[in-house]
Amino acid sequence: MQTLTVALDARSYPIHIGAGLIARAELIAERLPQKKVAVVTNSTVAPLYLAPLRRALVAAGVAVVPITLPDGEAHKNWETLNVILDALLEHRCERNTALIALGGGVIGDLAGFAAAVYQRGVPYIQVPTTLLAQVDSAVGGKTAINHPLGKNMVGAFHQPLAVITDTDTLATLPDRELSAGLAEVIKYGLIRDPQFFAWLEANIGRLVRREPESLAYAIERSCANKAEIVALDERESGPRALLNYGHTFGHAIEAGVGFGTWLHGEAVAAGMVLAARLSLRLGLIADADLARITALISAAGLPRHAPALGRERYLELMGHDKKVQGGRIRFILLRRIGEALVSDGVPEEALVAVLGAAGTHA
Amino acid sequence: MQTLTVALDARSYPIHIGAGLIARAELIAERLPQKKVAVVTNSTVAPLYLAPLRRALVAAGVAVVPITLPDGEAHKNWETLNVILDALLEHRCERNTALIALGGGVIGDLAGFAAAVYQRGVPYIQVPTTLLAQVDSAVGGKTAINHPLGKNMVGAFHQPLAVITDTDTLATLPDRELSAGLAEVIKYGLIRDPQFFAWLEANIGRLVRREPESLAYAIERSCANKAEIVALDERESGPRALLNYGHTFGHAIEAGVGFGTWLHGEAVAAGMVLAARLSLRLGLIADADLARITALISAAGLPRHAPALGRERYLELMGHDKKVQGGRIRFILLRRIGEALVSDGVPEEALVAVLGAAGTHA
Repeated sequence: MQTLTVALDARSYPIHIGAGLIARAELIAERLPQKKVAVVTNSTVAPLYLAPLRRALVAAGVAVVPITLPDGEAHKNWETLNVILDALLEHRCERNTALIALGGGVIGDLAGFAAAVYQRGVPYIQVPTTLLAQVDSAVGGKTAINHPLGKNMVGAFHQPLAVITDTDTLATLPDRELSAGLAEVIKYGLIRDPQFFAWLEANIGRLVRREPESLAYAIERSCANKAEIVALDERESGPRALLNYGHTFGHAIEAGVGFGTWLHGEAVAAGMVLAARLSLRLGLIADADLARITALISAAGLPRHAPALGRERYLELMGHDKKVQGGRIRFILLRRIGEALVSDGVPEEALVAVLGAAGTHA
Repeated sequence: MQTLTVALDARSYPIHIGAGLIARAELIAERLPQKKVAVVTNSTVAPLYLAPLRRALVAAGVAVVPITLPDGEAHKNWETLNVILDALLEHRCERNTALIALGGGVIGDLAGFAAAVYQRGVPYIQVPTTLLAQVDSAVGGKTAINHPLGKNMVGAFHQPLAVITDTDTLATLPDRELSAGLAEVIKYGLIRDPQFFAWLEANIGRLVRREPESLAYAIERSCANKAEIVALDERESGPRALLNYGHTFGHAIEAGVGFGTWLHGEAVAAGMVLAARLSLRLGLIADADLARITALISAAGLPRHAPALGRERYLELMGHDKKVQGGRIRFILLRRIGEALVSDGVPEEALVAVLGAAGTHA
């Protein structure tokens, strides 16, 4: 087991990464203020991992209230949030009752947001079971639900007590979900870690074939990057914004095709290519860089082409993004592979040209 | 104008108290990160104070998005919260767009909670127009909505940028609402300020007759007490719990008769009498103390008798309260007039006896 730390003073917490951690209930129990938890999971993950987690917790003397939700991004909304809150109240969960998010990014965001607002805030622990959640969404305390007008528009910053990543859970992950997770892994290389990007180019085949040691290394290095950024800028007033590379386009894609049609990681992959094209058009990166990026994204089994939503629809959808300031859309661009920057001065013609080519497989 | 400060390091903020402050838009404008605000108000307050506030803001160069909600505690729920969030998105409000809560406690709680969760948190300013909001709910950053199973069960701690109390707004307040505000004023005297309690006994007639100087003094002294407690214990891990004196019973009363039937302050008044009766039964205060308390509550135009919900129903409703820890209800009791304490060891027979007498005008 590897343990990293997200350093946030009194709210610092460990990220444990290793095989078989779901059975190690002491990693959870030692952080609990009360020997009672509510485990929030979904109908796909529950048959796989709820029973072993519950058994381990009960053996450690922890009472478990299970809350099983429908699966999918389409359920990351008010209705499902209220299912959690109703269950917490019905089972008389208190201010010291911790929530456990057992599942992927949607479960982590939903359970985390429920923990942020139930009785004005209760503790929670992330037990991510998808690669995407393990390398990204389970770390850093961002929680949210979607709004018909935009992704993650309603939420809170609420840090977990711990992140417990059992790498064995990746064995049951569908290929498409594994690839979606690799999108965020590639992102760390692109925005701040050129050595990692080169390592990914050399090892993408091993990752797609799920070689355990390669996957564990990719998770650790991703979490180390994320933990460093979150410690610098918990509430995204500065460098944390770089983590949104590919996401302004990606969120527009997700909303434009209907939440749940494209996986988040797929939309981010196509969005990272659009952002790279924009960087190329602005003279920041070279053709060869774009070629390396699209090649790695393809090799990861991810879409390199954004859907043909139409330029106007893209602009409309991006206008609702959280990264809008003073009416201007803020973009994360690449200065080179391994270095990103924030720009709110992207000329409209460059943006329009890149969006005009979206869906044409240019 | 008097100005107090809620001292919370980087999140410190002023409470301005005075006549005619709604016209002084510079008090708002100087705190804004962006010259655009969304003013959240209700259908009762809007005809009285929205136009002058809007005029002053526009004259100060601030764009105003008005959001007018239905009036009443019955609307402090998900549906109304979503009305605010939908409007913010439709008007493309950004992370720097501040909300302004113009109204009583319900508007402050709703707008504050919307500000806490919109785009994971945006700034807001409280402009309270009821005595209850001015002396209590607008100060301290507690925001929430109700759940059918309990009051304020879903919410967040989110401090405002400023509290601007225009005492002129009390001129239009119905008598019943004025009395409801006096319940929280009396509470400060009871739990920590015996001199203020004595002043209230001597001046309750002036307050009920709305003498401006007496009201301004009561607001200042109440806010000074609240600011001191919030600065000591922002997230209610310690002394802030004393502010809940009368509220465990009060919340049960509000939920039991149906939210909006009794005003919050009315339920708290009857709840404070129940808590005083419990303190008497436990040998903490004397008959003479209880008599002083009920006399002041009656003189303030408030109910001294709780409704006859039945002992079992009271216990059930209180079991859902946020003050429950380890299955035990925590009570705030009086050691004497001007000093409160927290107890989670109240013997059941004492509680049952006090509740059994509720509604019997014992």
